[in-house]
Amino acid sequence: MKKAVCLLSGGMDSAVTLYFAKREGYEPVALSFDYGQRHLRETESAQALARGLNAEHHVIPIRFPWKGSSLLDQQMKVPHGRVPEKITKDVPSTYVPARNSIFLAVAFSCAEAVKAESVFIGANALDYSGYPDCRPDFIAAFAEAMRQGTKTGMEGRPIRIMAPLLHLTKKEIVQLGRELGVPFENTWTCYEGGNRPCGTCDACVLRAKGFYEAGIEDPLVGHAGLF
Amino acid sequence: MKKAVCLLSGGMDSAVTLYFAKREGYEPVALSFDYGQRHLRETESAQALARGLNAEHHVIPIRFPWKGSSLLDQQMKVPHGRVPEKITKDVPSTYVPARNSIFLAVAFSCAEAVKAESVFIGANALDYSGYPDCRPDFIAAFAEAMRQGTKTGMEGRPIRIMAPLLHLTKKEIVQLGRELGVPFENTWTCYEGGNRPCGTCDACVLRAKGFYEAGIEDPLVGHAGLF
Repeated sequence: MKKAVCLLSGGMDSAVTLYFAKREGYEPVALSFDYGQRHLRETESAQALARGLNAEHHVIPIRFPWKGSSLLDQQMKVPHGRVPEKITKDVPSTYVPARNSIFLAVAFSCAEAVKAESVFIGANALDYSGYPDCRPDFIAAFAEAMRQGTKTGMEGRPIRIMAPLLHLTKKEIVQLGRELGVPFENTWTCYEGGNRPCGTCDACVLRAKGFYEAGIEDPLVGHAGLF
Repeated sequence: MKKAVCLLSGGMDSAVTLYFAKREGYEPVALSFDYGQRHLRETESAQALARGLNAEHHVIPIRFPWKGSSLLDQQMKVPHGRVPEKITKDVPSTYVPARNSIFLAVAFSCAEAVKAESVFIGANALDYSGYPDCRPDFIAAFAEAMRQGTKTGMEGRPIRIMAPLLHLTKKEIVQLGRELGVPFENTWTCYEGGNRPCGTCDACVLRAKGFYEAGIEDPLVGHAGLF
């Protein structure tokens, strides 16, 4: 059976991506990271999601002494109450420097070691926070760097990066997840990482937009309306 | 003072690179990794080197449950007794999947957080082990991926990758190190990571070649001849 390494934060997008990879016939190896994020509880959701698919799952701890992001620095504040149009415009303080580059590089390391043929990432460049490392140009450039910088790439059998959500809206992601049977109740999106979603951080707002537009109830909040 | 993040394994090449960055007027932030390598003692050399320059230094622990390399897998054997011509031809078992991609991605994360303008790496593509992630094409492709995938890159002030040893022979690296005053006694190269260099692993052989051709005594072994 063909293998794929799937980056799995535990959020909605990576959950849908994991289920998508499974449906495409891959045996997924799911990777999550404990990188000091304030919503570390997302990794528990990741574990529940992987377990639901009987998928191998690893939480990789990687901690830095530097911060540079409101997701890592408790002295900084996560933005709240912003409308979707504003969220998608700028790079917000929740941007974590080079995060997807680190995650993808580790995923390629795993993929070469376990002989996987693809790496899946739930990056999305429509209803997203303007993060540079979620854009199609970055994904393409990183794939090329990996083709140059890995043994498999040098030998002419490069590991591909699959980003099936890249050009989907949040509404379409919710719809795809519903179709794939994703247990949305086992996902975690909120940046604040409390006991229940705050409803007002950028991540909650974009998620709510998706469920609202799809007309589907978000089991984490109990309704499909905006907060 | 302009800052640079310097990848510092503790080996000869990264030591020369660190001293080079310092001479170029950078305030270096040195990064080492504890990634389960059998020669973890190289990080002690890295610490001594950084201390010698009064440079900020961090050892980042990052451990994977997979292996895929004889440097990580104690069940595998590191090659011994190979001649330099053989070493530079194939990708050996000591190749660690995507290692430089991981290290560079973390270095960019640090560089953005501490507002450094460059990332230095001691990659060398002449007297080297055929590692794909030491070749000029990889370095160039990775720099492009970082230009696409970081906030600084997106904003038109990309962090550069500086690889000053890329096209030098080991002899020239030894000579440059001598010129820069690198304390070679504080470096560690041997893959086996024992009390003294084994003298026969690929790393020892290439190092010995450099000192021999430069006609300089390697303080770690007490002479300039080949082992």
